[in-house]
Amino acid sequence: MNNKHVLSVLVENNPGVLSRVSGLFSRRGYNIDSFSAGGTENENLTRMTIVLEGDNHVLEQIQKQLKKLVDVVEIVEMKPHKAVFRELALIKVKADKSTRASIIEVVDIFRGKVIDIANNHLTVEMTGDSEKILAFIEMMEVHGIIEIVRTGITALGRWSD
Amino acid sequence: MNNKHVLSVLVENNPGVLSRVSGLFSRRGYNIDSFSAGGTENENLTRMTIVLEGDNHVLEQIQKQLKKLVDVVEIVEMKPHKAVFRELALIKVKADKSTRASIIEVVDIFRGKVIDIANNHLTVEMTGDSEKILAFIEMMEVHGIIEIVRTGITALGRWSD
Repeated sequence: MNNKHVLSVLVENNPGVLSRVSGLFSRRGYNIDSFSAGGTENENLTRMTIVLEGDNHVLEQIQKQLKKLVDVVEIVEMKPHKAVFRELALIKVKADKSTRASIIEVVDIFRGKVIDIANNHLTVEMTGDSEKILAFIEMMEVHGIIEIVRTGITALGRWSD
Repeated sequence: MNNKHVLSVLVENNPGVLSRVSGLFSRRGYNIDSFSAGGTENENLTRMTIVLEGDNHVLEQIQKQLKKLVDVVEIVEMKPHKAVFRELALIKVKADKSTRASIIEVVDIFRGKVIDIANNHLTVEMTGDSEKILAFIEMMEVHGIIEIVRTGITALGRWSD
């Protein structure tokens, strides 16, 4: 059973806000799967997207604690059918003249982009949900993966207001 | 003058590591511009990409402090000519039948993707460096931006080993 939850937390850009939010999780022993924080349409606000594992009770506790922080403007749980989820991964794969073409074929099927190339490797930019990114990484393992970096999940609600 | 630095910090997935790293910045009053943390090629390790503002002295201090944390495996400053930088943004824009086509034209030029659509808006997935994403957002402002979420910068070195 999948116990992953995605919380979208809108916060004011106060000094130390990242530390206060993440401290709240660690003090209570909640595990964070991924974490991303970036700018929004309002330059005074940052949106954090936090993926955590836990049952509904854990989730309720977290939300209650988050609400107590003065920095927090809004907390939304992003549900699969009501939001789009995307992650960005940069994947550096071993590639030479003999394997490059077949790697690029797979990159195209996954609608990724080759963003850097050298004699013995290439770097792919891939976006999608976590399953898609994992599927692509699995396809690349036969060639040899040098390095992967991932942003963590970000999410946007499907509704409009 | 641009005083932004991008630090790539490889850490062990220990409970509370996010809080320890971010606490180090906030206690010393360093401002974090963006923050992303996600999985790597090693399931026991997470790579954090931290964008911060400050002079070289600030940067040195930060690196010294980070090295003292037992969770930290590696710290690399990602320099513009030796790394690729990418960010993922999801942008929800007002769009109706009369404006949709011209919006999609711009999305195509920026090599973005429309990932969700409704009667009165559409959601665009855009990747690139921060300048490209800002340029796209500016182009969308005339239509009306409903919501933006960004992952923060992630970076991968151009070298191979």
